[in-house]
Amino acid sequence: MPRTAETASYKFNHTMIRVKDPKVSLPFYTDVLGMDIISEQNMGDFTLYFLGFDHDGLMKLAPEERSKARFNREGILELTHNHGTESDANFQGYASGNSDPGRGFGHIAITVDNIEEACARLEKLGVPFKKRLTDGKMKNIAFILDPDGYWIEIVPGALKL
Amino acid sequence: MPRTAETASYKFNHTMIRVKDPKVSLPFYTDVLGMDIISEQNMGDFTLYFLGFDHDGLMKLAPEERSKARFNREGILELTHNHGTESDANFQGYASGNSDPGRGFGHIAITVDNIEEACARLEKLGVPFKKRLTDGKMKNIAFILDPDGYWIEIVPGALKL
Repeated sequence: MPRTAETASYKFNHTMIRVKDPKVSLPFYTDVLGMDIISEQNMGDFTLYFLGFDHDGLMKLAPEERSKARFNREGILELTHNHGTESDANFQGYASGNSDPGRGFGHIAITVDNIEEACARLEKLGVPFKKRLTDGKMKNIAFILDPDGYWIEIVPGALKL
Repeated sequence: MPRTAETASYKFNHTMIRVKDPKVSLPFYTDVLGMDIISEQNMGDFTLYFLGFDHDGLMKLAPEERSKARFNREGILELTHNHGTESDANFQGYASGNSDPGRGFGHIAITVDNIEEACARLEKLGVPFKKRLTDGKMKNIAFILDPDGYWIEIVPGALKL
């Protein structure tokens, strides 16, 4: 039941982060994490990439339909590439949000069914870990780092009902 | 169709942002935006609040079941409250990610079915706008600010198929 009639249609559509180089970030989010590129828009000075896990057959749609459909679901990740950062020697990189100053945004999180298998695979792929399953107190979650240093939490979907 | 067998179970579970004062932020995300508080965890020095739009009857479940179920879906917003920030006169506030230095995280976004109605309501509620529908080139989206200054994009779900 939606909380109020006025907000009954609302969905948490997407989260946007900026990335330095899509040639590095796109393979990470697709090949490593398993998202698909639902649509992309070249806006002139920057390009937007909309990614998501294809649980609903979205990728079977024609590109134009897909591009519209991504407005009407949850779990979309928007990657913004400001053209030029990938080859700018003076570019400082983006803040992950987890260090001063700032420390506002924390992380995104991916649910997986078998977290041991998922972490073993990520390890094998050479993905850097911020926290392995065996580190710290929380033995049932892990944190990896994406190419820009954003934290990605890996959480077990095995806690399903 | 999931992209690969290995990542077939993956879901974009949640996005975490830090908030200064849950007494301000929780009413914003529930009463204004229409999310429900699915579960909360007091971790000692900090408290985590997990919120989401109840499209799947989640809130009918008992609190313990709900707390488990939130691992197995997309579209969860995690608000982290580090105890004390709400009353610390020296607290500088959190960076929204949209100004230097840093400028990494961008925003979260909410899909609504009738964007004119939604924006009129937000306006009436006194929510600050970063960009009204009538501002700028993109007349079909708006940006509001949450209590910590994070940007929230309002996007039209009317682009549905």
